[in-house]
Amino acid sequence: MPSSATLLVSSPDQRGIVASLAEFIYKYNGNVLHADQHRDDGEGLFFTRIEWSLEGFALDREEFWNAFQPISTRFCMSPKLYYSIDRQRIGLFVSRQQHCLTDLLQRHQIGELPCDIAFIISNHPDASDVAQFFGVPFHHLPVRSESKPEAEAAQLRLIAETNSDLLVLARYMQVLSPEFVGKFPGRIINVHHSFLPAFTGARPYHAAYDRGVKLIGATSHYVTEALDQGPIIEQDVTRISHRDQVDDLIQKGRDLEKMVLSRAVRWHLQHRILTYGNKTVVFD
Amino acid sequence: MPSSATLLVSSPDQRGIVASLAEFIYKYNGNVLHADQHRDDGEGLFFTRIEWSLEGFALDREEFWNAFQPISTRFCMSPKLYYSIDRQRIGLFVSRQQHCLTDLLQRHQIGELPCDIAFIISNHPDASDVAQFFGVPFHHLPVRSESKPEAEAAQLRLIAETNSDLLVLARYMQVLSPEFVGKFPGRIINVHHSFLPAFTGARPYHAAYDRGVKLIGATSHYVTEALDQGPIIEQDVTRISHRDQVDDLIQKGRDLEKMVLSRAVRWHLQHRILTYGNKTVVFD
Amino acid sequence: MPSSATLLVSSPDQRGIVASLAEFIYKYNGNVLHADQHRDDGEGLFFTRIEWSLEGFALDREEFWNAFQPISTRFCMSPKLYYSIDRQRIGLFVSRQQHCLTDLLQRHQIGELPCDIAFIISNHPDASDVAQFFGVPFHHLPVRSESKPEAEAAQLRLIAETNSDLLVLARYMQVLSPEFVGKFPGRIINVHHSFLPAFTGARPYHAAYDRGVKLIGATSHYVTEALDQGPIIEQDVTRISHRDQVDDLIQKGRDLEKMVLSRAVRWHLQHRILTYGNKTVVFD
Amino acid sequence: MPSSATLLVSSPDQRGIVASLAEFIYKYNGNVLHADQHRDDGEGLFFTRIEWSLEGFALDREEFWNAFQPISTRFCMSPKLYYSIDRQRIGLFVSRQQHCLTDLLQRHQIGELPCDIAFIISNHPDASDVAQFFGVPFHHLPVRSESKPEAEAAQLRLIAETNSDLLVLARYMQVLSPEFVGKFPGRIINVHHSFLPAFTGARPYHAAYDRGVKLIGATSHYVTEALDQGPIIEQDVTRISHRDQVDDLIQKGRDLEKMVLSRAVRWHLQHRILTYGNKTVVFD
Repeated sequence: MPSSATLLVSSPDQRGIVASLAEFIYKYNGNVLHADQHRDDGEGLFFTRIEWSLEGFALDREEFWNAFQPISTRFCMSPKLYYSIDRQRIGLFVSRQQHCLTDLLQRHQIGELPCDIAFIISNHPDASDVAQFFGVPFHHLPVRSESKPEAEAAQLRLIAETNSDLLVLARYMQVLSPEFVGKFPGRIINVHHSFLPAFTGARPYHAAYDRGVKLIGATSHYVTEALDQGPIIEQDVTRISHRDQVDDLIQKGRDLEKMVLSRAVRWHLQHRILTYGNKTVVFD
Repeated sequence: MPSSATLLVSSPDQRGIVASLAEFIYKYNGNVLHADQHRDDGEGLFFTRIEWSLEGFALDREEFWNAFQPISTRFCMSPKLYYSIDRQRIGLFVSRQQHCLTDLLQRHQIGELPCDIAFIISNHPDASDVAQFFGVPFHHLPVRSESKPEAEAAQLRLIAETNSDLLVLARYMQVLSPEFVGKFPGRIINVHHSFLPAFTGARPYHAAYDRGVKLIGATSHYVTEALDQGPIIEQDVTRISHRDQVDDLIQKGRDLEKMVLSRAVRWHLQHRILTYGNKTVVFD
Repeated sequence: MPSSATLLVSSPDQRGIVASLAEFIYKYNGNVLHADQHRDDGEGLFFTRIEWSLEGFALDREEFWNAFQPISTRFCMSPKLYYSIDRQRIGLFVSRQQHCLTDLLQRHQIGELPCDIAFIISNHPDASDVAQFFGVPFHHLPVRSESKPEAEAAQLRLIAETNSDLLVLARYMQVLSPEFVGKFPGRIINVHHSFLPAFTGARPYHAAYDRGVKLIGATSHYVTEALDQGPIIEQDVTRISHRDQVDDLIQKGRDLEKMVLSRAVRWHLQHRILTYGNKTVVFD
Repeated sequence: MPSSATLLVSSPDQRGIVASLAEFIYKYNGNVLHADQHRDDGEGLFFTRIEWSLEGFALDREEFWNAFQPISTRFCMSPKLYYSIDRQRIGLFVSRQQHCLTDLLQRHQIGELPCDIAFIISNHPDASDVAQFFGVPFHHLPVRSESKPEAEAAQLRLIAETNSDLLVLARYMQVLSPEFVGKFPGRIINVHHSFLPAFTGARPYHAAYDRGVKLIGATSHYVTEALDQGPIIEQDVTRISHRDQVDDLIQKGRDLEKMVLSRAVRWHLQHRILTYGNKTVVFD
């Protein structure tokens, strides 16, 4: 596969944006592979994702920004550009339950997730074996309320040392501090084991059982300072019945968690997600 | 189809219940058509639904209760018995939007709902035509906050006159008073246009849009005094994306509302639903 | 809502198409409302749908084609242009079962289907009442194998007289002749009550029951001369179990049929569907 | 969890069966944990699954059959009895693709599958590492058409030596000989990567792509001598669009395959499945 570039743009909606962007890519001999766009009429916003082949494209990295500057300025764009050869690095956080972790590692192994996995951090030692099997450095960083600042400091060092682009909370049961979260806007993905906004907080399967719902769900979302309130990336549900006890919900829910989390991570890695306000645009 | 009887039983869970019930039906020459049961181990409760053919069954209505008394007493049962020849009567409540109403009437017409439709009550005149087409008496009873007591009094008279067994709120946008609701425990079914417990109250599609969820849902439930808090009978969801505006959610949601409401009404009419606490057992 | 125009384009994939189209709309002061595109890399084909507001757009109908000619020629396009003010006319075909028919009529009534319903044709008289209620001319045209040519001739006259754009087979149980079908390529939509390509032909619910599948489906598709082989527009499924008899499959299937057929009709009316080979592109 | 027994019964449908069974369990002081039943009216057959606690149950294994004999004879039953303490042993077959294998091993590790995994057989060496990680003996048995008899002989020896109860084909791409299959009726589970009966045979995702379906599926089923024709245990589907290429179908399908196969294996291990004719009853 030849390398490609992906441009993500948010801007106020104006006539001529698409023409300008398309003409720009064409002018420098880019061959568009995928393009998608969205208008939010209520907010007056425009979003687009354009991916083009770099084979024969006339601009290198520096030249791109010089050439693109006038368009960006004219339309007040917030552009982001990604090159497929810049392999992203992700860090995984996990607690005791390892089904999401193992699932991500296995998907990575068979090529579903285009990235390097820089490290696994856990507040428990349990995942050490699976980390070793998949060849990922494992760091056991216990967290107690009084030691959270030190633990987060250690986590931050590790993220900095490994130059990690994305943090994935694969059933990590510790709440990250607002200071920590604030350093990585749109760069931390969590999975919550309910159909948000229903059943925020702890023990959502127990809450779902108590309420007597007929479907249970899982939600992947970007982490913000407000717990379980960040922009939703993906959700899925499965049917349950009165026969299902809490343990059945937990078991059925694991499949949902694995799917919504892995989809979110893949889409993020493919630069398919734009956030605005507390929402996401996910280009398919 | 020969007529049948359906027995619904709730009781504390004890050894020997199923044997006693099965032996009882067998002894009086009942041919079991369907039987299902459920145990809630946490609560120590037992639930069963038995439907048997009355062809050749040895007990008439009065004799049944005399014969069944010892079992019922021994196991502290709350039994309910329904005969298929006792056609149930239902009353429909509707406001401006008629998609659920028309859907129920059409399903009734082709035989999906084994009941008579006694009346349609609306706080708007709009549904008068469709009521006439399907041959159901229509009553326009406007409701304003100051006139709600009179409106409910008129509704109660109509329910009493028609001997109605079940009330179905087919997108009826008025909140019924606790006094009214209290008269019909387990006999009022509502459809709420969200995946409860998310987005209770007014304008759930707007709330879902604002939160940026990726699935929308609908819920049918028995009405209790606590708004949108009653035992859930059925839920379903459909996928949406960032492209869907509130109007799209409303349109896609209509299909969900029709399905979850009609299933709930059919299951109720087939005596498949047992409520306990704030939950339902729905035998399939 | 101001009127809009929608352009559907199929062409060989070439660099510069999107730039040319976007620049064209922009040059004549069109405000793009929605735009979507698709490349089939295997076939080397490009597809796009562009909808723009006509408010302030500089070209009237005749001028459009003159102005667009150079682009169309340069890229070997097959363009189609639709104006929202040109209200489409559709004709409905139905047999005995009326659930799809009533569903479409009810959706039309509440504004889900932007079209006029020109007529209902049936080989049975049953739907006459519902046609009258919804104010649509009803034509009872019985079909026996020996009289099919005359019946089709009468149908063709009616279609011609009413200038109908689209024919919808809402559970019409007669097979149309290849001659008839050949006159309306991409203009006849059928619903088949199975998950195609499984269970083509007659009595698919019986076949599904016999095979013991765990899901049943329905499929809407464009009609071609090969029975049940045309381009698929939409499919959906629902879960069944060993408890479900053929009658249950038929009942559960009705909801699927209504949904997949109505979605197909709406998407067709919104010019969201492009066909190529035996496939569809459905822009969302 | 105390140990339990599960009785599976198929028989001609007759009055008195349930009463006899329930009375039998009750008489010997069994505490019923779950019970479910099904009647196939068309075939005149009765099926039931009863699970009861052995705590306090009066009959040991030998006594059970003596005591049960009269009931079994009277109703012409084919009964099967399973004790939860008799841990089942399963053998896994895999080829190159390991997603189903890893999924089963991971589910086994966290307790979703109540069994021992006796061995992994593969016609390729690739899965050796993952087998070692999960501590399961791995046997590389290459299969070429001329060597299939020897390969199957080696497989049979391994199955016999390990006393394996169930064979699971976790994307095993070799067709087993009728002789081999004939030795294990109802004891081999396969996953086919399509929504059967659509797309039997090789390369179903390619066939689905070519047909232009809007949903893809996967099916788990018992293996019989007729390829892809055995009794279906579970099916699931997911939505695709014109944007999805064959590779996308393969990727999305993997999640379906993992889920339908693991559910089938779990239900088999829990003795929830009865087969009759070419169908399954799956008690939930």
